[in-house]
Amino acid sequence: MRATTIHAPGDIRVEEVPDPAIEQPTDAIVKVTAGCICGSDLWPYRGENPIRGGSTIGHECVGVVEEVGSAVTSVKPGDFVIVPFCHCDNSCPNCRFGAHSACVNLGITSSGQAEYARVTQADGSLVVTDGVPSADELPSVLALTDVMPTGWHAAVAAGVRAGGTVMVVGDGAVGLCGVLAASVMGAETVIAMSRHEPRQSLARAFGATHVVAARGREGVAEVREITGGIGVDAALECVGTDDAMRTAISATRPGGGVGFVGVPHGVELPIRKLFEKNVGVRGGMAPVRRYLPELLELVVAGRIDPGRVFDLTLPLEEAPEGYRAMDERRAIKVMLRP
Amino acid sequence: MRATTIHAPGDIRVEEVPDPAIEQPTDAIVKVTAGCICGSDLWPYRGENPIRGGSTIGHECVGVVEEVGSAVTSVKPGDFVIVPFCHCDNSCPNCRFGAHSACVNLGITSSGQAEYARVTQADGSLVVTDGVPSADELPSVLALTDVMPTGWHAAVAAGVRAGGTVMVVGDGAVGLCGVLAASVMGAETVIAMSRHEPRQSLARAFGATHVVAARGREGVAEVREITGGIGVDAALECVGTDDAMRTAISATRPGGGVGFVGVPHGVELPIRKLFEKNVGVRGGMAPVRRYLPELLELVVAGRIDPGRVFDLTLPLEEAPEGYRAMDERRAIKVMLRP
Repeated sequence: MRATTIHAPGDIRVEEVPDPAIEQPTDAIVKVTAGCICGSDLWPYRGENPIRGGSTIGHECVGVVEEVGSAVTSVKPGDFVIVPFCHCDNSCPNCRFGAHSACVNLGITSSGQAEYARVTQADGSLVVTDGVPSADELPSVLALTDVMPTGWHAAVAAGVRAGGTVMVVGDGAVGLCGVLAASVMGAETVIAMSRHEPRQSLARAFGATHVVAARGREGVAEVREITGGIGVDAALECVGTDDAMRTAISATRPGGGVGFVGVPHGVELPIRKLFEKNVGVRGGMAPVRRYLPELLELVVAGRIDPGRVFDLTLPLEEAPEGYRAMDERRAIKVMLRP
Repeated sequence: MRATTIHAPGDIRVEEVPDPAIEQPTDAIVKVTAGCICGSDLWPYRGENPIRGGSTIGHECVGVVEEVGSAVTSVKPGDFVIVPFCHCDNSCPNCRFGAHSACVNLGITSSGQAEYARVTQADGSLVVTDGVPSADELPSVLALTDVMPTGWHAAVAAGVRAGGTVMVVGDGAVGLCGVLAASVMGAETVIAMSRHEPRQSLARAFGATHVVAARGREGVAEVREITGGIGVDAALECVGTDDAMRTAISATRPGGGVGFVGVPHGVELPIRKLFEKNVGVRGGMAPVRRYLPELLELVVAGRIDPGRVFDLTLPLEEAPEGYRAMDERRAIKVMLRP
């Protein structure tokens, strides 16, 4: 099949690789209708994560079940499915505790930017949609594989509550989905930290009541001013850098919470400051499967439209251009169609 | 008045100092019935915190109101009161958010081991008991000034829930009160990490279902075994050292929480591990006033008896011996009677 591969920093190719096959009775093979590029794919692209040269890349896709293993009972060939980027059995003690991203049978989609993807734990992971999504719905359904549940997880982890004040650090697709999550959860004040049009516009469309372009100390000062000198109840750290974390912690009020979903790169948590302010910190890989039913319902009901983060759609063959566009921040998020 | 003072590491004295006086209209002066020594008093005693030579020490006491400032309306001379170690107005935005220990008018009791203590923000801070506590009740009422609300805060911050599994790192008075808190909150499994009799016995009396004497890796392995290989839902870190924090995080299940109340000394939070496990971390100085009404009710109803942590009572003049006894772990917690 044709698949996106990474060979070195900046070296993305689309080439022939072996078709994925059923390896375990719990597997399924999905024919990819649409895949996409994740902000976290940019870490290896920028040389900040190790690379196994020639390996496939991409962990987000939706599509049609092509084949299932002998133990799979809840999906069948022909079903249109959402593939959570992290696979789980949805029944182990960790899943039952809501920590699906720490499932004892955890798997990760490894060829979401390709023609086919293998899904381990198909029964626990895959969510079947009611028919094939329309062209209008497809982007929002695709966003449910990672970026929307991840923004949602940041909001849950930060403790967003109805009527509360929230800030979101990071105006990538996840941050923007965090804005949408906070808004849907009923936060009264939602502050998006962003200096880029059209990200600011999308943040407002997603429910941001304020946009702060300043960063660091100045940004924190503006957030404080908006919140009457107090700071926010909940901060969503959707970047993964030390600067972003410090900004989030500094702008959070005493007793508030920080939810972080950006894979931490060089982040040091200032424990004395956390102690002095009684600010909680919680985050990690989103338990996508846990949130999927609720989020799909919101999409189907037209209450959220996270698919608006896709501002560039390319044929699979142009994946390298998709990476460049996201790396250079010319695109918020890129959809790839095999 | 006679008061306990600290002059250098290990150098505790009881000597004459000026009587505290009303300085602000919101102040009250309390004649101390009983004060006590806190685990955190041992940090300067051991030379691990800076010392202003000759300053009074001790932040926990109960007693009778002697005098009030002109603005004080809710307490009057003659009232028996519980003095939260951190004073607050109980009305600022931080207090209304439950973060009383970050009150904009925060104060700290500075002569709890003495004949008199000045309380700033008397109206917001002091809780009047229904008459003078009996000799039996006095220790438990005294424990409400710091150690019991601090253990309770660790449990709240860790997210202890009815039916859950909990471990408590630290068998000092706070850790033991954490055991009591988790037990009263309905945790089904409460594991106390302790290698000292009679602390193990008191932990069991406070509701510990298991006592683990091993530390570090071995201790974590035992906790895992007790919890069916999974780890605990909630860990209470009641020491403040890096070892204690690592033990707490390691033994917490994915998606669980760590509540920390030991003032951090040399603690580094392993952010990657927190991310990988989706383990939340929250803690700080306890918002004592927030929990006081509920805890006093539990004491009065005979449902908790945190006063059992006091296993040595000395006259105020013997404060130096009290410090030695706690430092050498001969006593769990020492009450001082002026």
